[in-house]
Amino acid sequence: MDVMREANRREVAGEDIIHMEVGQPATPAPRAARERVVQAMAEHNLGYTLSLGLPELRERIAAYLEARYGVDVGPERIVVTAGSSAGFVLAFLAVLDHGDSFGLPSPGYPCYRQILKALGFRPHLIETSGAGRWMPTVADVEALGASGAAGLLLASPNNPTGTMTRGARLKELAKTCARQGLWLISDEIYHGLEYEAAAETALAYSDSAIVVNSFSKYFSMTGWRVGWLVVPEALTRTIERLAQNLYIAPPTVSQVAALGAFDGIDELEEIKSRYARNRSLLLNELPPAGLSNVLPADGAFYLYADVRDLTDDSAAFAQAMLREIGVATTPGMDFDPERGRSYLRLSYAGAEREMREAARRIAAWLKTR
Amino acid sequence: MDVMREANRREVAGEDIIHMEVGQPATPAPRAARERVVQAMAEHNLGYTLSLGLPELRERIAAYLEARYGVDVGPERIVVTAGSSAGFVLAFLAVLDHGDSFGLPSPGYPCYRQILKALGFRPHLIETSGAGRWMPTVADVEALGASGAAGLLLASPNNPTGTMTRGARLKELAKTCARQGLWLISDEIYHGLEYEAAAETALAYSDSAIVVNSFSKYFSMTGWRVGWLVVPEALTRTIERLAQNLYIAPPTVSQVAALGAFDGIDELEEIKSRYARNRSLLLNELPPAGLSNVLPADGAFYLYADVRDLTDDSAAFAQAMLREIGVATTPGMDFDPERGRSYLRLSYAGAEREMREAARRIAAWLKTR
Ligand SMILES: Cc1ncc(COP(=O)(O)O)c(C=O)c1O
Ligand SMILES: Cc1ncc(COP(=O)(O)O)c(C=O)c1O
Repeated sequence: MDVMREANRREVAGEDIIHMEVGQPATPAPRAARERVVQAMAEHNLGYTLSLGLPELRERIAAYLEARYGVDVGPERIVVTAGSSAGFVLAFLAVLDHGDSFGLPSPGYPCYRQILKALGFRPHLIETSGAGRWMPTVADVEALGASGAAGLLLASPNNPTGTMTRGARLKELAKTCARQGLWLISDEIYHGLEYEAAAETALAYSDSAIVVNSFSKYFSMTGWRVGWLVVPEALTRTIERLAQNLYIAPPTVSQVAALGAFDGIDELEEIKSRYARNRSLLLNELPPAGLSNVLPADGAFYLYADVRDLTDDSAAFAQAMLREIGVATTPGMDFDPERGRSYLRLSYAGAEREMREAARRIAAWLKTR
Repeated sequence: MDVMREANRREVAGEDIIHMEVGQPATPAPRAARERVVQAMAEHNLGYTLSLGLPELRERIAAYLEARYGVDVGPERIVVTAGSSAGFVLAFLAVLDHGDSFGLPSPGYPCYRQILKALGFRPHLIETSGAGRWMPTVADVEALGASGAAGLLLASPNNPTGTMTRGARLKELAKTCARQGLWLISDEIYHGLEYEAAAETALAYSDSAIVVNSFSKYFSMTGWRVGWLVVPEALTRTIERLAQNLYIAPPTVSQVAALGAFDGIDELEEIKSRYARNRSLLLNELPPAGLSNVLPADGAFYLYADVRDLTDDSAAFAQAMLREIGVATTPGMDFDPERGRSYLRLSYAGAEREMREAARRIAAWLKTR
């Protein structure tokens, strides 16, 4: 946040800033989504919807999941939420009791631990390693179960690292959660944005997993605040009551836009191919320039660079990079309080031209240090 | 909710149902709001906004409060939220610790107590009386303070009763909260919809009150999920962090629509004059028809009828009314678990023609009972 504020301040002051600190697409919602909204402005009242969301949208999401992963969950298990953020609040409140602890791999998205704390629960951080592609191991999950924690959050592709877990390893993790009596909450918000192998849903290996997803990233609709949960049948009634009381319903206009977004897949695939080009460009240019410890992340739009050879304070490093060459990045401490001092997250959601310019500036800058 | 579901089922089955059970306007957002949205579809990315909301909207709300009530709170104290529902979540989490109790006048909006419970807090119900226009007394607030509760929620106009508190009485309540060290959360979501005297904001009598408001009711934008808080300066940072972590930001498209809504006041005043006509119509027609214990509510779009002469089970009564004459209403138990058995809430947010027809049906029906 500090870097973001400072980057915006400098931009307003006229500096030419490249934003590699932001966690959102630079594109609007697909045209098909925006057209639906224009139409709705003339035709719909847009009052409260049902708490679980527009039935038509729940069906469309279920069909999408079936087409994409071959899993048949049915619309009854889909809960439309105000972004995945509201989905996490609902999921945690549905399965946790006051004081319960919940396993969070670290580095990870910082809001997980903040949401848990705000609601009276306890984050239980699990240190992962770059060698293990920043994913917990089966031993980690067994230790988590033994600690008495209530569940595990898994994000694949992960933020900030972009790394994924799939196949046998994902299956083993899901089975271990089941064996240990741990809830598995799977954050699949970066699904659709993967560049090597396809992401797999936890639902392929678990009927009791709670899947969190959103129209924010692949669908390029961050500000719309619309996402969804897939919940086990036994939880739908609890979640419905919580949603009804805490939120009444997700934003109607955004649900209408989300329906339209499914007709904009071609446009979204084009945006994704830009991310893919940005990713290749950075993976080609950064290592020879001196930013060499970069794991070639599988998905999302992030690279998590190990900068320990360059600094032992990534926050100061990021500030200097912003001040001296106008490239904004996010220090790792936001995602991993301790070890993050040696890491930097670079988002490649921006324009291709900007990524090229960023690589150029970083190369020139590292030469002078 | 049961009545609403049953009413919708019957409607789908072809019955001619009059919806006096719904708590929302039958109208869309004002034209000026919808036009802004259409324009934004072409011009804006609609990414995440700042967590406290679009600066322009915070300024517009502050200006509105100043024009409306003559209070100068400044944009810094305005927090844009995803409906007032999210505002309550933020306000409760900001001021309460686990297990704290919070005073809720009863009858009242049922989500207050559900939100408190879901978040690990305890509702402390305060029985109010029709004779006291369903508002707590100074003695009630003193007793609340003595009980160790953390605060008081005040809603004026109130849902389900439509009654208000203002002037010396509101001032006394605010001062008593201050004296007792109680947080005062003032739900002002029905402000703008008052038919006798103007509603007054708690801010007129308290600098430390937290005011909750929304574009849902007066602005006719329920499904948009956009509202605001006015918070004391000392709480803004806490609320900003909570909002950032729990929600990231309120829906951008809805914030844009809200900005436009301020240019649609003429249209909103027309909608309000329809409510006023509906209210007069029902207050003229219902008592001679036999629904006589109706307090002439000051605001919102509800009448809370005392039906103890007609039934000792308002839920069964409402079901019978729906089944036999197709008029859907809400039994009082939703708002007041015990005494609500003798009350019925009637919403007059619908069309004038429907209200006339409802009065006719109710009169004919009561004659046969
Ligand atoms: C891993 C991850 N999960 C969840 C979210 C929340 O996104 P939203 O609430 O917009 O769906 C983000 C946003 O950056 C994220 O990176
Ligand atoms: C008294 C009262 N407060 C708050 C709300 C919540 O409204 P919203 O979240 O749409 O702002 C309602 C909705 O019916 C209400 O009646």
